[in-house]
Amino acid sequence: MTAESGTRIGSNWKLTLSYDGTDFYGWQVQPDQVTIQGSLAEAIERVTGERVLPQGSGRTDAGVHARGQVASFSLEAGIPAENLQRALNRKLPESVRVLHAEKTGGEFHARHSAKAKTYEYRIWREEICPPWEARYAWALTWPLELERMQVAAQAVVGTRDFTSFAASDPDLATRQALVAGGEEEFAGNIRTIFESGWRGEGELLIYRVRGNGFLHHMVRNLVGTFVDVGRGAMEPVEIREILDARSRREAGATAPARGLFLDRVEY
Amino acid sequence: MTAESGTRIGSNWKLTLSYDGTDFYGWQVQPDQVTIQGSLAEAIERVTGERVLPQGSGRTDAGVHARGQVASFSLEAGIPAENLQRALNRKLPESVRVLHAEKTGGEFHARHSAKAKTYEYRIWREEICPPWEARYAWALTWPLELERMQVAAQAVVGTRDFTSFAASDPDLATRQALVAGGEEEFAGNIRTIFESGWRGEGELLIYRVRGNGFLHHMVRNLVGTFVDVGRGAMEPVEIREILDARSRREAGATAPARGLFLDRVEY
Repeated sequence: MTAESGTRIGSNWKLTLSYDGTDFYGWQVQPDQVTIQGSLAEAIERVTGERVLPQGSGRTDAGVHARGQVASFSLEAGIPAENLQRALNRKLPESVRVLHAEKTGGEFHARHSAKAKTYEYRIWREEICPPWEARYAWALTWPLELERMQVAAQAVVGTRDFTSFAASDPDLATRQALVAGGEEEFAGNIRTIFESGWRGEGELLIYRVRGNGFLHHMVRNLVGTFVDVGRGAMEPVEIREILDARSRREAGATAPARGLFLDRVEY
Repeated sequence: MTAESGTRIGSNWKLTLSYDGTDFYGWQVQPDQVTIQGSLAEAIERVTGERVLPQGSGRTDAGVHARGQVASFSLEAGIPAENLQRALNRKLPESVRVLHAEKTGGEFHARHSAKAKTYEYRIWREEICPPWEARYAWALTWPLELERMQVAAQAVVGTRDFTSFAASDPDLATRQALVAGGEEEFAGNIRTIFESGWRGEGELLIYRVRGNGFLHHMVRNLVGTFVDVGRGAMEPVEIREILDARSRREAGATAPARGLFLDRVEY
Protein backbone atom coordinates (compact mmCIF):
# COMPACT_ATOMS: atom_id res chain seq x y z
CA MET A 1 0.00 0.00 0.00
CA THR A 2 2.80 2.43 0.71
CA ALA A 3 4.90 4.06 -1.95
CA GLU A 4 8.04 4.75 0.00
CA SER A 5 10.75 3.60 -2.33
CA GLY A 6 9.66 5.45 -5.43
CA THR A 7 10.33 2.37 -7.56
CA ARG A 8 6.74 1.87 -8.68
CA ILE A 9 5.48 3.08 -12.02
CA GLY A 10 4.15 6.63 -11.76
CA SER A 11 5.67 9.81 -10.43
CA ASN A 12 7.79 10.40 -7.37
CA TRP A 13 6.72 13.56 -5.56
CA LYS A 14 8.45 16.07 -3.31
CA LEU A 15 6.26 18.34 -1.19
CA THR A 16 7.43 21.24 0.97
CA LEU A 17 5.14 21.73 3.97
CA SER A 18 4.53 24.31 6.65
CA TYR A 19 2.54 23.41 9.76
CA ASP A 20 1.49 24.52 13.20
CA GLY A 21 2.15 21.42 15.30
CA THR A 22 0.09 22.54 18.31
CA ASP A 23 -2.98 20.47 17.58
CA PHE A 24 -1.18 17.42 16.18
CA TYR A 25 0.29 14.38 17.84
CA GLY A 26 3.53 14.91 15.94
CA TRP A 27 4.45 13.95 12.39
CA GLN A 28 4.18 10.20 12.47
CA VAL A 29 0.96 8.25 12.04
CA GLN A 30 -0.26 6.96 15.42
CA PRO A 31 -3.35 4.89 16.19
CA ASP A 32 -6.32 7.09 17.13
CA GLN A 33 -4.28 10.30 16.97
CA VAL A 34 -4.35 13.20 14.55
CA THR A 35 -0.88 13.50 13.02
CA ILE A 36 0.62 15.54 10.18
CA GLN A 37 1.61 12.44 8.21
CA GLY A 38 -1.85 10.95 8.67
CA SER A 39 -3.63 14.18 7.67
CA LEU A 40 -1.43 14.49 4.59
CA ALA A 41 -2.02 10.85 3.60
CA GLU A 42 -5.75 11.41 3.94
CA ALA A 43 -5.67 14.57 1.82
CA ILE A 44 -3.64 12.79 -0.87
CA GLU A 45 -6.16 9.96 -0.91
CA ARG A 46 -9.09 12.37 -1.18
CA VAL A 47 -7.43 14.15 -4.09
CA THR A 48 -6.03 11.16 -6.03
CA GLY A 49 -7.83 8.11 -4.70
CA GLU A 50 -4.44 6.59 -3.90
CA ARG A 51 -3.43 5.56 -0.41
CA VAL A 52 0.26 6.33 0.19
CA LEU A 53 2.35 6.95 3.27
CA PRO A 54 4.29 10.17 2.68
CA GLN A 55 7.81 9.98 4.11
CA GLY A 56 9.01 13.03 6.00
CA SER A 57 12.60 14.29 6.19
CA GLY A 58 12.30 13.35 9.85
CA ARG A 59 9.66 13.05 12.54
CA THR A 60 8.67 16.15 14.44
CA ASP A 61 7.29 15.62 17.95
CA ALA A 62 3.87 16.72 19.17
CA GLY A 63 3.72 20.52 19.32
CA VAL A 64 6.77 21.08 17.09
CA HIS A 65 6.18 23.29 14.03
CA ALA A 66 7.61 23.36 10.52
CA ARG A 67 8.25 26.12 8.03
CA GLY A 68 9.81 23.80 5.46
CA GLN A 69 9.29 20.12 6.20
CA VAL A 70 9.77 17.94 3.12
CA ALA A 71 7.77 14.81 2.30
CA SER A 72 8.10 12.32 -0.56
CA PHE A 73 5.79 9.66 -2.00
CA SER A 74 4.88 8.07 -5.33
CA LEU A 75 1.59 8.36 -7.15
CA GLU A 76 0.22 6.39 -10.09
CA ALA A 77 -1.99 9.29 -11.12
CA GLY A 78 -0.68 11.91 -13.49
CA ILE A 79 -1.51 15.38 -12.16
CA PRO A 80 0.13 18.79 -12.75
CA ALA A 81 2.18 19.88 -9.73
CA GLU A 82 0.30 23.13 -9.23
CA ASN A 83 -3.03 21.32 -9.30
CA LEU A 84 -1.87 18.80 -6.71
CA GLN A 85 -0.63 21.61 -4.45
CA ARG A 86 -3.90 23.55 -4.67
CA ALA A 87 -6.10 20.49 -4.28
CA LEU A 88 -4.16 19.33 -1.20
CA ASN A 89 -4.42 22.79 0.38
CA ARG A 90 -8.17 22.66 -0.09
CA LYS A 91 -8.39 19.28 1.70
CA LEU A 92 -5.83 19.89 4.45
CA PRO A 93 -6.66 21.76 7.66
CA GLU A 94 -5.49 25.40 7.65
CA SER A 95 -2.78 24.43 10.13
CA VAL A 96 -0.98 22.45 7.39
CA ARG A 97 -0.02 24.11 4.09
CA VAL A 98 1.69 22.72 1.02
CA LEU A 99 4.14 25.46 0.02
CA HIS A 100 5.48 23.67 -3.02
CA ALA A 101 4.89 20.44 -4.96
CA GLU A 102 7.15 18.99 -7.63
CA LYS A 103 7.73 15.75 -9.47
CA THR A 104 11.19 14.47 -8.79
CA GLY A 105 13.52 11.64 -9.72
CA GLY A 106 12.52 8.16 -8.62
CA GLU A 107 15.53 7.90 -6.32
CA PHE A 108 14.54 10.95 -4.25
CA HIS A 109 13.54 10.17 -0.65
CA ALA A 110 12.74 12.98 1.79
CA ARG A 111 14.73 11.35 4.60
CA HIS A 112 17.47 9.35 2.89
CA SER A 113 18.34 12.13 0.44
CA ALA A 114 18.54 14.94 3.02
CA LYS A 115 21.96 16.60 3.25
CA ALA A 116 21.25 19.17 5.96
CA LYS A 117 18.47 20.42 8.19
CA THR A 118 17.99 23.74 9.92
CA TYR A 119 15.94 24.23 13.08
CA GLU A 120 15.02 27.41 14.93
CA TYR A 121 13.98 27.71 18.55
CA ARG A 122 12.11 30.80 19.80
CA ILE A 123 12.20 32.13 23.37
CA TRP A 124 9.88 34.96 24.38
CA ARG A 125 11.61 37.29 26.86
CA GLU A 126 8.95 39.68 28.14
CA GLU A 127 6.95 38.89 31.26
CA ILE A 128 3.69 38.77 29.33
CA CYS A 129 3.64 36.50 26.31
CA PRO A 130 0.98 37.71 23.83
CA PRO A 131 -1.72 35.09 23.16
CA TRP A 132 -0.65 34.85 19.49
CA GLU A 133 2.94 34.01 20.49
CA ALA A 134 2.11 31.46 23.18
CA ARG A 135 1.85 28.54 20.76
CA TYR A 136 5.13 29.40 19.03
CA ALA A 137 7.63 30.26 21.75
CA TRP A 138 8.94 29.27 25.18
CA ALA A 139 8.02 32.17 27.49
CA LEU A 140 11.03 32.50 29.74
CA THR A 141 11.47 35.54 31.94
CA TRP A 142 14.59 34.51 33.85
CA PRO A 143 17.51 36.88 33.28
CA LEU A 144 19.59 35.37 30.48
CA GLU A 145 23.03 36.43 29.30
CA LEU A 146 22.99 36.17 25.53
CA GLU A 147 26.78 36.31 25.20
CA ARG A 148 27.24 33.28 27.41
CA MET A 149 24.59 31.39 25.45
CA GLN A 150 26.33 32.33 22.22
CA VAL A 151 29.67 30.94 23.44
CA ALA A 152 27.93 27.72 24.49
CA ALA A 153 26.14 27.44 21.13
CA GLN A 154 29.43 27.83 19.25
CA ALA A 155 30.92 24.97 21.24
CA VAL A 156 28.75 22.34 19.54
CA VAL A 157 29.80 23.24 15.98
CA GLY A 158 31.73 20.40 14.33
CA THR A 159 31.49 16.62 14.07
CA ARG A 160 30.76 15.25 17.52
CA ASP A 161 29.09 12.48 19.49
CA PHE A 162 25.82 14.02 20.70
CA THR A 163 24.77 11.17 23.00
CA SER A 164 24.54 13.63 25.91
CA PHE A 165 21.92 15.62 24.02
CA ALA A 166 19.88 12.69 22.73
CA ALA A 167 16.52 11.74 24.24
CA SER A 168 16.99 10.54 27.82
CA ASP A 169 17.10 6.89 28.82
CA PRO A 170 13.34 6.35 29.24
CA ASP A 171 13.11 7.07 25.52
CA LEU A 172 15.97 4.78 24.58
CA ALA A 173 13.73 2.02 23.30
CA THR A 174 11.85 4.51 21.17
CA ARG A 175 15.07 5.99 19.89
CA GLN A 176 16.51 2.62 19.00
CA ALA A 177 13.28 1.75 17.25
CA LEU A 178 13.56 4.98 15.28
CA VAL A 179 17.12 4.15 14.29
CA ALA A 180 16.11 0.62 13.38
CA GLY A 181 13.31 2.10 11.29
CA GLY A 182 15.79 4.18 9.35
CA GLU A 183 15.09 7.45 11.20
CA GLU A 184 18.74 8.40 11.08
CA GLU A 185 21.20 7.54 8.38
CA PHE A 186 24.30 8.06 10.48
CA ALA A 187 26.58 5.91 12.56
CA GLY A 188 25.49 5.95 16.20
CA ASN A 189 25.10 9.39 17.74
CA ILE A 190 27.73 11.25 15.73
CA ARG A 191 26.43 14.28 13.86
CA THR A 192 27.99 17.32 12.20
CA ILE A 193 26.75 20.77 13.17
CA PHE A 194 27.58 23.43 10.57
CA GLU A 195 26.11 26.48 12.32
CA SER A 196 24.82 27.10 15.82
CA GLY A 197 24.02 30.51 17.21
CA TRP A 198 21.63 32.84 19.02
CA ARG A 199 20.25 36.18 17.91
CA GLY A 200 17.92 38.71 19.48
CA GLU A 201 14.89 39.84 17.47
CA GLY A 202 12.58 42.22 19.30
CA GLU A 203 11.25 40.41 22.37
CA LEU A 204 12.54 37.08 21.05
CA LEU A 205 15.77 35.17 21.44
CA ILE A 206 16.16 32.83 18.50
CA TYR A 207 18.49 29.85 18.31
CA ARG A 208 19.32 28.64 14.81
CA VAL A 209 21.15 25.38 14.18
CA ARG A 210 22.06 23.70 10.91
CA GLY A 211 23.49 20.20 10.78
CA ASN A 212 23.62 17.01 8.73
CA GLY A 213 21.23 15.30 11.12
CA PHE A 214 19.77 15.50 14.60
CA LEU A 215 19.05 12.93 17.31
CA HIS A 216 15.62 12.69 18.92
CA HIS A 217 15.09 15.74 21.20
CA MET A 218 18.59 17.00 20.35
CA VAL A 219 17.71 20.62 19.54
CA ARG A 220 15.41 20.94 22.54
CA ASN A 221 18.07 19.44 24.82
CA LEU A 222 20.69 21.81 23.44
CA VAL A 223 18.37 24.78 24.04
CA GLY A 224 17.60 23.66 27.60
CA THR A 225 21.32 23.44 28.28
CA PHE A 226 22.13 26.80 26.67
CA VAL A 227 19.42 28.37 28.83
CA ASP A 228 21.14 26.88 31.90
CA VAL A 229 24.30 28.60 30.72
CA GLY A 230 22.44 31.84 30.08
CA ARG A 231 20.98 31.98 33.58
CA GLY A 232 24.30 31.15 35.21
CA ALA A 233 23.56 27.60 36.36
CA MET A 234 26.32 26.28 34.11
CA GLU A 235 29.49 27.67 32.49
CA PRO A 236 29.85 27.84 28.68
CA VAL A 237 33.03 25.75 28.93
CA GLU A 238 31.03 22.87 30.43
CA ILE A 239 29.37 22.18 27.07
CA ARG A 240 32.46 20.33 25.90
CA GLU A 241 32.58 18.33 29.14
CA ILE A 242 28.93 17.38 28.66
CA LEU A 243 29.64 16.21 25.11
CA ASP A 244 32.64 14.18 26.33
CA ALA A 245 30.56 12.53 29.08
CA ARG A 246 28.25 10.94 26.49
CA SER A 247 25.49 10.83 29.10
CA ARG A 248 22.09 12.48 28.89
CA ARG A 249 22.21 13.15 32.64
CA GLU A 250 24.93 15.76 32.22
CA ALA A 251 22.94 18.14 30.03
CA GLY A 252 20.08 20.50 30.88
CA ALA A 253 16.35 19.90 30.68
CA THR A 254 14.44 19.46 27.42
CA ALA A 255 13.01 22.79 26.22
CA PRO A 256 9.26 22.75 25.42
CA ALA A 257 8.17 21.59 21.96
CA ARG A 258 6.17 24.74 21.20
CA GLY A 259 9.26 26.89 20.56
CA LEU A 260 10.78 24.56 17.95
CA PHE A 261 10.49 25.01 14.17
CA LEU A 262 11.93 22.76 11.49
CA ASP A 263 13.00 25.60 9.23
CA ARG A 264 14.34 23.90 6.08
CA VAL A 265 15.77 20.72 4.67
CA GLU A 266 18.55 20.76 2.07
CA TYR A 267 19.15 18.08 -0.58
CA MET B 1 -23.56 39.25 43.28
CA THR B 2 -22.23 41.48 40.54
CA ALA B 3 -20.14 44.55 41.14
CA GLU B 4 -20.96 46.50 38.06
CA SER B 5 -21.70 49.91 39.42
CA GLY B 6 -18.57 50.32 41.50
CA THR B 7 -20.59 51.78 44.35
CA ARG B 8 -19.87 49.03 46.86
CA ILE B 9 -17.22 49.40 49.52
CA GLY B 10 -13.87 48.16 48.22
CA SER B 11 -11.90 49.04 45.12
CA ASN B 12 -13.03 49.59 41.58
CA TRP B 13 -10.65 47.92 39.12
CA LYS B 14 -9.65 48.54 35.52
CA LEU B 15 -7.95 45.70 33.64
CA THR B 16 -6.44 45.88 30.17
CA LEU B 17 -6.65 42.51 28.41
CA SER B 18 -5.25 40.85 25.34
CA TYR B 19 -6.81 37.68 23.97
CA ASP B 20 -6.91 35.24 21.10
CA GLY B 21 -10.64 34.81 20.52
CA THR B 22 -10.35 31.69 18.36
CA ASP B 23 -11.26 29.19 21.05
CA PHE B 24 -13.84 31.34 22.82
CA TYR B 25 -17.54 31.83 22.26
CA GLY B 26 -17.02 35.59 22.33
CA TRP B 27 -16.72 37.97 25.28
CA GLN B 28 -20.06 37.58 26.95
CA VAL B 29 -20.98 34.82 29.41
CA GLN B 30 -23.16 32.20 27.72
CA PRO B 31 -24.64 29.04 29.20
CA ASP B 32 -22.38 26.02 28.61
CA GLN B 33 -19.87 28.02 26.53
CA VAL B 34 -16.33 29.09 27.24
CA THR B 35 -16.21 32.89 27.00
CA ILE B 36 -13.63 35.56 27.83
CA GLN B 37 -15.86 37.21 30.40
CA GLY B 38 -16.62 33.87 32.04
CA SER B 39 -12.96 32.82 32.10
CA LEU B 40 -11.98 36.15 33.62
CA ALA B 41 -14.73 35.96 36.25
CA GLU B 42 -13.55 32.47 37.17
CA ALA B 43 -9.92 33.57 37.46
CA ILE B 44 -10.91 36.54 39.64
CA GLU B 45 -12.88 34.22 41.89
CA ARG B 46 -9.99 31.77 42.17
CA VAL B 47 -7.62 34.59 43.12
CA THR B 48 -9.86 36.63 45.47
CA GLY B 49 -12.72 34.34 46.44
CA GLU B 50 -15.13 36.99 45.15
CA ARG B 51 -17.63 36.31 42.39
CA VAL B 52 -17.96 39.37 40.14
CA LEU B 53 -19.06 39.92 36.56
CA PRO B 54 -16.35 41.99 34.86
CA GLN B 55 -17.84 44.53 32.44
CA GLY B 56 -16.08 44.84 29.10
CA SER B 57 -15.80 48.01 27.01
CA GLY B 58 -18.00 46.09 24.57
CA ARG B 59 -18.72 42.56 23.51
CA THR B 60 -16.47 40.90 21.00
CA ASP B 61 -17.98 38.10 18.92
CA ALA B 62 -16.72 34.53 18.77
CA GLY B 63 -13.34 34.43 17.05
CA VAL B 64 -12.64 38.17 17.43
CA HIS B 65 -9.35 39.04 19.16
CA ALA B 66 -8.26 41.88 21.42
CA ARG B 67 -4.97 43.64 21.99
CA GLY B 68 -6.37 46.10 24.50
CA GLN B 69 -9.86 45.21 25.69
CA VAL B 70 -10.73 46.93 28.98
CA ALA B 71 -12.78 45.42 31.80
CA SER B 72 -14.00 46.92 35.07
CA PHE B 73 -15.33 45.39 38.31
CA SER B 74 -15.27 46.01 42.05
CA LEU B 75 -13.58 43.87 44.67
CA GLU B 76 -13.90 43.88 48.46
CA ALA B 77 -10.43 42.42 48.88
CA GLY B 78 -7.44 44.73 49.13
CA ILE B 79 -4.69 43.50 46.82
CA PRO B 80 -1.76 45.32 45.17
CA ALA B 81 -2.41 45.86 41.46
CA GLU B 82 0.72 44.04 40.34
CA ASN B 83 -0.15 41.03 42.48
CA LEU B 84 -3.65 40.86 41.04
CA GLN B 85 -2.28 41.05 37.51
CA ARG B 86 0.26 38.27 38.08
CA ALA B 87 -2.18 36.02 39.95
CA LEU B 88 -4.81 36.38 37.22
CA ASN B 89 -2.27 35.56 34.52
CA ARG B 90 -1.39 32.39 36.41
CA LYS B 91 -5.05 31.30 36.52
CA LEU B 92 -6.13 32.41 33.04
CA PRO B 93 -5.50 30.31 29.93
CA GLU B 94 -2.48 31.46 27.88
CA SER B 95 -4.88 32.77 25.26
CA VAL B 96 -5.99 35.54 27.66
CA ARG B 97 -3.44 37.91 29.25
CA VAL B 98 -3.89 40.75 31.69
CA LEU B 99 -1.57 43.46 30.34
CA HIS B 100 -2.29 45.98 33.08
CA ALA B 101 -4.30 46.19 36.29
CA GLU B 102 -5.07 49.36 38.24
CA LYS B 103 -7.39 50.61 40.93
CA THR B 104 -9.55 53.37 39.62
CA GLY B 105 -12.26 55.80 40.72
CA GLY B 106 -15.58 54.32 41.75
CA GLU B 107 -17.34 55.99 38.84
CA PHE B 108 -15.20 54.27 36.18
CA HIS B 109 -17.06 51.77 34.02
CA ALA B 110 -15.32 50.04 31.10
CA ARG B 111 -18.27 50.54 28.78
CA HIS B 112 -20.02 53.70 29.98
CA SER B 113 -16.78 55.64 30.39
CA ALA B 114 -15.27 54.75 26.99
CA LYS B 115 -14.62 57.78 24.76
CA ALA B 116 -13.21 56.01 21.72
CA LYS B 117 -12.33 52.56 20.43
CA THR B 118 -9.91 51.45 17.74
CA TYR B 119 -10.26 48.24 15.76
CA GLU B 120 -7.93 46.68 13.22
CA TYR B 121 -8.83 44.16 10.55
CA ARG B 122 -6.13 42.03 8.90
CA ILE B 123 -6.33 40.57 5.37
CA TRP B 124 -3.67 38.11 4.21
CA ARG B 125 -2.92 38.64 0.51
CA GLU B 126 -0.68 35.76 -0.56
CA GLU B 127 -2.14 32.57 -1.98
CA ILE B 128 -0.81 30.51 0.88
CA CYS B 129 -1.67 31.72 4.36
CA PRO B 130 0.95 30.47 6.85
CA PRO B 131 -0.55 28.27 9.59
CA TRP B 132 0.42 30.86 12.26
CA GLU B 133 -1.51 33.60 10.44
CA ALA B 134 -4.65 31.59 9.70
CA ARG B 135 -6.27 32.33 13.06
CA TYR B 136 -5.57 36.06 12.80
CA ALA B 137 -6.39 37.13 9.26
CA TRP B 138 -8.87 36.75 6.43
CA ALA B 139 -6.98 34.98 3.64
CA LEU B 140 -8.19 36.70 0.50
CA THR B 141 -6.40 36.20 -2.78
CA TRP B 142 -8.73 38.14 -5.08
CA PRO B 143 -7.00 41.08 -6.80
CA LEU B 144 -7.75 44.14 -4.67
CA GLU B 145 -7.09 47.78 -5.48
CA LEU B 146 -5.87 49.40 -2.31
CA GLU B 147 -6.45 52.95 -3.57
CA ARG B 148 -10.14 52.30 -4.22
CA MET B 149 -10.48 50.74 -0.77
CA GLN B 150 -8.78 53.76 0.75
CA VAL B 151 -11.23 56.17 -0.90
CA ALA B 152 -14.13 54.07 0.35
CA ALA B 153 -12.69 53.94 3.88
CA GLN B 154 -12.34 57.73 3.97
CA ALA B 155 -16.01 58.10 3.03
CA VAL B 156 -17.23 56.83 6.40
CA VAL B 157 -15.28 59.37 8.49
CA GLY B 158 -17.61 61.73 10.35
CA THR B 159 -20.85 61.53 12.30
CA ARG B 160 -23.27 59.33 10.41
CA ASP B 161 -26.13 56.89 10.67
CA PHE B 162 -24.51 53.45 10.27
CA THR B 163 -27.72 51.41 10.06
CA SER B 164 -26.58 50.00 6.70
CA PHE B 165 -23.50 48.54 8.37
CA ALA B 166 -25.19 47.19 11.50
CA ALA B 167 -25.89 43.50 12.00
CA SER B 168 -28.44 42.29 9.47
CA ASP B 169 -32.12 41.85 10.22
CA PRO B 170 -31.97 38.28 11.55
CA ASP B 171 -29.81 39.71 14.36
CA LEU B 172 -32.13 42.61 15.01
CA ALA B 173 -33.63 41.11 18.14
CA THR B 174 -30.15 40.45 19.50
CA ARG B 175 -29.05 43.93 18.63
CA GLN B 176 -32.05 45.53 20.26
CA ALA B 177 -31.44 43.42 23.34
CA LEU B 178 -27.84 44.62 23.39
CA VAL B 179 -28.96 48.23 23.18
CA ALA B 180 -31.55 47.65 25.86
CA GLY B 181 -28.83 46.11 27.99
CA GLY B 182 -26.73 49.22 27.68
CA GLU B 183 -24.39 47.87 25.01
CA GLU B 184 -24.28 51.22 23.28
CA GLU B 185 -24.60 54.62 24.89
CA PHE B 186 -25.60 56.46 21.76
CA ALA B 187 -28.81 57.51 20.12
CA GLY B 188 -29.94 54.93 17.58
CA ASN B 189 -27.37 53.99 14.98
CA ILE B 190 -25.49 57.29 14.77
CA ARG B 191 -21.76 57.04 15.47
CA THR B 192 -18.75 59.25 14.86
CA ILE B 193 -15.74 57.79 13.03
CA PHE B 194 -12.55 59.77 13.65
CA GLU B 195 -10.17 57.76 11.47
CA SER B 196 -10.69 55.08 8.85
CA GLY B 197 -7.97 53.83 6.53
CA TRP B 198 -6.06 50.96 4.96
CA ARG B 199 -2.35 50.31 4.91
CA GLY B 200 -0.15 47.59 3.43
CA GLU B 201 2.25 45.79 5.74
CA GLY B 202 4.21 42.99 4.09
CA GLU B 203 1.70 40.38 2.94
CA LEU B 204 -1.07 42.03 4.94
CA LEU B 205 -3.64 44.70 4.22
CA ILE B 206 -4.69 46.28 7.50
CA TYR B 207 -7.80 48.38 8.05
CA ARG B 208 -7.71 50.65 11.10
CA VAL B 209 -10.79 52.45 12.34
CA ARG B 210 -11.23 54.69 15.38
CA GLY B 211 -14.63 55.91 16.49
CA ASN B 212 -16.74 56.86 19.49
CA GLY B 213 -18.67 53.59 19.24
CA PHE B 214 -19.52 50.75 16.89
CA LEU B 215 -22.71 48.84 16.11
CA HIS B 216 -22.81 45.06 16.22
CA HIS B 217 -20.82 43.66 13.24
CA MET B 218 -20.15 47.22 12.01
CA VAL B 219 -16.39 46.88 11.44
CA ARG B 220 -16.76 43.49 9.75
CA ASN B 221 -19.56 44.83 7.52
CA LEU B 222 -17.46 47.86 6.59
CA VAL B 223 -14.52 45.59 5.71
CA GLY B 224 -16.72 43.29 3.61
CA THR B 225 -17.99 46.32 1.70
CA PHE B 226 -14.53 47.86 1.22
CA VAL B 227 -13.38 44.52 -0.18
CA ASP B 228 -16.26 44.66 -2.68
CA VAL B 229 -14.96 48.07 -3.70
CA GLY B 230 -11.39 46.79 -3.88
CA ARG B 231 -12.28 43.93 -6.20
CA GLY B 232 -14.38 46.15 -8.44
CA ALA B 233 -17.85 44.88 -7.54
CA MET B 234 -18.77 48.33 -6.22
CA GLU B 235 -17.59 51.90 -6.73
CA PRO B 236 -16.06 53.93 -3.86
CA VAL B 237 -18.70 56.60 -4.35
CA GLU B 238 -21.42 54.07 -3.54
CA ILE B 239 -20.42 54.05 0.13
CA ARG B 240 -22.29 57.31 0.70
CA GLU B 241 -25.35 55.91 -1.09
CA ILE B 242 -25.23 52.82 1.11
CA LEU B 243 -25.07 55.00 4.23
CA ASP B 244 -28.01 57.08 3.00
CA ALA B 245 -30.09 53.98 2.29
CA ARG B 246 -30.03 52.98 5.99
CA SER B 247 -30.52 49.36 4.98
CA ARG B 248 -28.23 46.46 5.72
CA ARG B 249 -29.10 44.92 2.36
CA GLU B 250 -27.17 47.62 0.50
CA ALA B 251 -23.75 46.87 1.99
CA GLY B 252 -21.34 44.00 1.38
CA ALA B 253 -21.00 40.72 3.23
CA THR B 254 -19.73 40.43 6.82
CA ALA B 255 -15.98 39.78 6.87
CA PRO B 256 -14.90 36.76 8.98
CA ALA B 257 -14.37 37.28 12.72
CA ARG B 258 -10.81 35.91 12.70
CA GLY B 259 -9.30 39.03 11.10
CA LEU B 260 -10.71 41.47 13.65
CA PHE B 261 -8.80 42.89 16.62
CA LEU B 262 -10.11 45.31 19.23
CA ASP B 263 -6.91 47.35 19.41
CA ARG B 264 -7.52 49.88 22.18
CA VAL B 265 -10.13 51.70 24.19
CA GLU B 266 -9.70 55.34 25.20
CA TYR B 267 -11.21 57.00 28.29
